[in-house]
Amino acid sequence: MESIAVSGEIKMTAVDQGTITDVAVEQMSATPDPRLKQIMEALVRHLHAFAREVDLTPEEWLEGITFLTAVGQTCTPTRQEFILLSDTLGLSSLVTSLHDQRTQSSGTTSSLLGPFYRQDSPDKKLGESIVNDPEVPEIALYGRVTDTAGRGIANATVEIWQTDDKGVYDLQKDGAAIDARARFRTDSEGRYWLRTVTPLGYLIPMDGPVGDMIRAQKRHGYRPGHIHFLISAPGYREVVTALYMGYDDHIDSDTVFGVRAPLVVRIDKNNPHNPVPELDGSIHFDFQLSPVSSAGDSGRVGADPSQILKK
Amino acid sequence: MESIAVSGEIKMTAVDQGTITDVAVEQMSATPDPRLKQIMEALVRHLHAFAREVDLTPEEWLEGITFLTAVGQTCTPTRQEFILLSDTLGLSSLVTSLHDQRTQSSGTTSSLLGPFYRQDSPDKKLGESIVNDPEVPEIALYGRVTDTAGRGIANATVEIWQTDDKGVYDLQKDGAAIDARARFRTDSEGRYWLRTVTPLGYLIPMDGPVGDMIRAQKRHGYRPGHIHFLISAPGYREVVTALYMGYDDHIDSDTVFGVRAPLVVRIDKNNPHNPVPELDGSIHFDFQLSPVSSAGDSGRVGADPSQILKK
Repeated sequence: MESIAVSGEIKMTAVDQGTITDVAVEQMSATPDPRLKQIMEALVRHLHAFAREVDLTPEEWLEGITFLTAVGQTCTPTRQEFILLSDTLGLSSLVTSLHDQRTQSSGTTSSLLGPFYRQDSPDKKLGESIVNDPEVPEIALYGRVTDTAGRGIANATVEIWQTDDKGVYDLQKDGAAIDARARFRTDSEGRYWLRTVTPLGYLIPMDGPVGDMIRAQKRHGYRPGHIHFLISAPGYREVVTALYMGYDDHIDSDTVFGVRAPLVVRIDKNNPHNPVPELDGSIHFDFQLSPVSSAGDSGRVGADPSQILKK
Repeated sequence: MESIAVSGEIKMTAVDQGTITDVAVEQMSATPDPRLKQIMEALVRHLHAFAREVDLTPEEWLEGITFLTAVGQTCTPTRQEFILLSDTLGLSSLVTSLHDQRTQSSGTTSSLLGPFYRQDSPDKKLGESIVNDPEVPEIALYGRVTDTAGRGIANATVEIWQTDDKGVYDLQKDGAAIDARARFRTDSEGRYWLRTVTPLGYLIPMDGPVGDMIRAQKRHGYRPGHIHFLISAPGYREVVTALYMGYDDHIDSDTVFGVRAPLVVRIDKNNPHNPVPELDGSIHFDFQLSPVSSAGDSGRVGADPSQILKK
């Protein structure tokens, strides 16, 4: 960067359209944490490249500031509008894929955590229903949690959460009881089975700034019906994923880009292997966990978005 | 993008690490407003390129979500933490320079609006002080507002705001009166003159998430002393700018990258042209406004950040 004399007495660095990115990166160069330094430098370079490419105007910049402020102010302990924004921009989906690629996991494909996970799911016994008062016929959901060689993992934790039969999460209902979520442990052969209702596809929350964005983009705003999972066992990588209902009209146009081909399932009727034979429909899915690679690798990826504002 | 068969019955688009960016851009392709479409597509591409370059992990992603949420929740009608974030990342400075470049303005160089502008500055008469109770010797600030040919613009509006003699803006003091800001009109020859105090350099607000970031980056967090201006007149481009005190220790390392060489000034002693001769020190600066280029070009760039949460 050029140093220039000012007022005949002061030497200063010239900041202008051409040098500002280098000047900003230089000012962050003493960051002690090398990873934070790398991330922030890359963020500044890409953020500036974006502004240069579109030749962002002061009015548009202020509109962006106003939008981001509204996103932040919409967040509550039961609503995470920034995760919704990340989801609808495809960033969350990309981070999920990068994770699978980085860990070279031969385990189950990841999908989005989404904004509705919570840590305080009730523990239930295998075979129990996760739904408090089902008003539609239940289905069975079953399978095994195995290692990558297909050996069952006993006592693995299977956390599951989904919408109720009206397409609503318990967290979206003010003061309502915990519903349509639970935590199970696999049996000695790694098997799990439970009862639930068919999850309905739903419109993402449209009454906040992200909803305004989706409408301005003429997107439909729907997610196909899906069931969230967080699968974990000591010594294995945690898997955050979801199963997607193949019959859903929006299976091919998920507004948050969570659908992955290996995670699309169907509901079988009269399946002779259904472990809850009194139920007509069943979904069968086996989860594979890959081992953690080193002592310093916790394998943990899940976290509770509802805790962000409780810290 | 590849379409693949799922479960032997559904055709769906393959979303993975390689295709997610195209899929996301495609889903936004029906956006009716062409400028919004352009901005959002570029944003998605650059945001994804950033995540790919640093191979962003789920833990780091959640840390980012938590940080942005905290930034949003720190905003109040008198504090704009997202503008502070944009400022400290050099984005605001870049947008300012892009504006000057786009408008090919031969007028005064722009600088940052900053988070402390407000629309309800009191009108004052030429020669009055903008400071309610100065506890240090005042200085004179004077000059002309001209067109790019150097002809004075009569009745131009000169809005000015700065810190008091302790380095604090009125907006940073709970419930305090409006202070160290005012609105003047130039005389028939485009001249302005007023009394103020020497603005002190200051630490940006460090008690929020942006302060946490600045500390983690081992940056000093200081801005050199400066005086903000918003200059306007019908038929001319509004100029948002600031004058920077050349003697300040941080003139060369402004934490928000607002300093521009043409905007660095000094305080003259015993200047025979000082229009307020009873004051010892004076700053002389002439502002140039360029004409608006077309009927549809308002020339307005200023906006009141404090209105963001009042809408």
